[in-house]
Amino acid sequence: MQNLIRIGIVGYGNLGRGVETSIQKNPDLQLVGIFTRRAPETVKPCFAETSVFHMDSLSEFKDKIDVLILCGGSKDDLPQQTPQLASQFNTVDSFDTHARIPEFFDAVNAPALANKKTVMISIGWDPGMFSINRLFGEALLPDGETYTFWGKGLSQGHSDAIRRVDGVKAGVQYTIPSTDAIEKVRRGSRPQLSTKDKHTRECYVVLENGADAKVVEQAIVTMPDYFADYNTTVNFIDEETLRKEHSSMPHGGFVIRSGNSSAEQNQVIEFSLKLDSNPEFTASVLVAYARACYRMNKTGQYGAKTAFDVAPGLLSMKSPEQLRKEIL
Amino acid sequence: MQNLIRIGIVGYGNLGRGVETSIQKNPDLQLVGIFTRRAPETVKPCFAETSVFHMDSLSEFKDKIDVLILCGGSKDDLPQQTPQLASQFNTVDSFDTHARIPEFFDAVNAPALANKKTVMISIGWDPGMFSINRLFGEALLPDGETYTFWGKGLSQGHSDAIRRVDGVKAGVQYTIPSTDAIEKVRRGSRPQLSTKDKHTRECYVVLENGADAKVVEQAIVTMPDYFADYNTTVNFIDEETLRKEHSSMPHGGFVIRSGNSSAEQNQVIEFSLKLDSNPEFTASVLVAYARACYRMNKTGQYGAKTAFDVAPGLLSMKSPEQLRKEIL
Repeated sequence: MQNLIRIGIVGYGNLGRGVETSIQKNPDLQLVGIFTRRAPETVKPCFAETSVFHMDSLSEFKDKIDVLILCGGSKDDLPQQTPQLASQFNTVDSFDTHARIPEFFDAVNAPALANKKTVMISIGWDPGMFSINRLFGEALLPDGETYTFWGKGLSQGHSDAIRRVDGVKAGVQYTIPSTDAIEKVRRGSRPQLSTKDKHTRECYVVLENGADAKVVEQAIVTMPDYFADYNTTVNFIDEETLRKEHSSMPHGGFVIRSGNSSAEQNQVIEFSLKLDSNPEFTASVLVAYARACYRMNKTGQYGAKTAFDVAPGLLSMKSPEQLRKEIL
Repeated sequence: MQNLIRIGIVGYGNLGRGVETSIQKNPDLQLVGIFTRRAPETVKPCFAETSVFHMDSLSEFKDKIDVLILCGGSKDDLPQQTPQLASQFNTVDSFDTHARIPEFFDAVNAPALANKKTVMISIGWDPGMFSINRLFGEALLPDGETYTFWGKGLSQGHSDAIRRVDGVKAGVQYTIPSTDAIEKVRRGSRPQLSTKDKHTRECYVVLENGADAKVVEQAIVTMPDYFADYNTTVNFIDEETLRKEHSSMPHGGFVIRSGNSSAEQNQVIEFSLKLDSNPEFTASVLVAYARACYRMNKTGQYGAKTAFDVAPGLLSMKSPEQLRKEIL
């Protein structure tokens, strides 16, 4: 039996809980503990045996942790944490502000290289698995178009926007990929589609006492940027239904490449995810990449890495021999 | 502008023609020529500018070719060719006899390592892209089941079996994935399914003059191994229809992983291909991996490799910076 790979979790929200849960399903990994900015005794982990430490004690664990999984947010936490921790630890994070990835990469690459650490950024499903499939599509069918659809998924930003409307007590918004648009793409016609051609928006709203449903609906469907340009439906429900039917965090989507290998031969590559829990799936991806991070560091592959830099075999618990025999 | 990567094609059937065509769509690659066991002047390439050489002259091209793409068959050609050529060239092949991959790997690994060559075996879509997706599924959702469905696709072996039936003049067989079975898997119920639960068989048959359709149909649907255990339909058509509607080589399929990230949260990952031309798509995959083969050889990654060993970024014409900026 090889030594277990020792993992630390930094930050303990939905994503951190998902990582804690996922590690239980990976017998070659061992959770050293959760590191939090809160008072450790106020944090209740999912599993009784999980240790909780204060962030300030992290540097004492330099030699006791192989990979840190950073579970903070992309807006405020990771831009600070990853560059700082990259000089002491191998890390994996889910930095998902697409437009800022190049500068984030540079900010973590320098300290990681200088300290012989391997730092995997922007791991998850988008960026992450979806990005890999966009790359496969382009590389295998250079003469083609790639289409990314999101959903059905709960959108936090749009749900917040609904809740700011006068007369709305509570509500959620789902982004729904357009079935028509997906079928068009699958048929290989390579249509031109904007984000709003590809998605519709579905709202579930609880009204304040005495609020006028017609007025609220009108305010939502005409809201600029968020809803005005989309086919939006508004459903009114009571609080009990909202709690019972709309408190999970489903998500998913499709990456479809339609291309021609020659003038007459169309080929369609499709990757899709249907997730009951967005944070738990993202966590599962982070955990598999933590294994790859450890292995790449052991073979001297230092610096910042993304999902594009990781050979698939490094993600598996199985040996290369076993993989070739069993699933190639 | 970087130097073009110089490619040679060994063997010129459907797959070789697909590789010749695909190289036209990859401006960083350059086709040096086709190498054949036939008399070169009898071979008519798809593009007038393509050179054709005899196999015997291959060793003169040792310094003029960066990667050889081997387009022979897995039964008779590749088991001979790949181990022999691996001492002189970087190669990519589509060896697809799943059960014999481990011994084939060993047979090519030794000469490749001894001569600092990079030899990619079993590249294509199954083995190949489907294998990668089976690996992703297992690695990301260790608590789950993987399902591979094939089709809709023309099966050469089953088409041959039909044509051996008395009274059959010509015919083709398609393997069709069962929609019911796919839907069951997508719903996350993790059903137990055998190959025959997952597929049906559809035959298109041209009768000999005077043959009895009922007798032929009975002979086909009761044929052991090939059809008896499957839900098989037989359609009788005329020769003209066979030629017009059944002379292309479509294929494809689905790899679906259904797993639980925790007791209550099911996650479904699905990868699928819908191919107008099986050989042209396989060729497109070989060509993208030839680029990766060249790059891995340049960085000293010698020996036998499979799709599991190749980081996705190596397949792309784009630089790592460009990939992070544009599609991550």
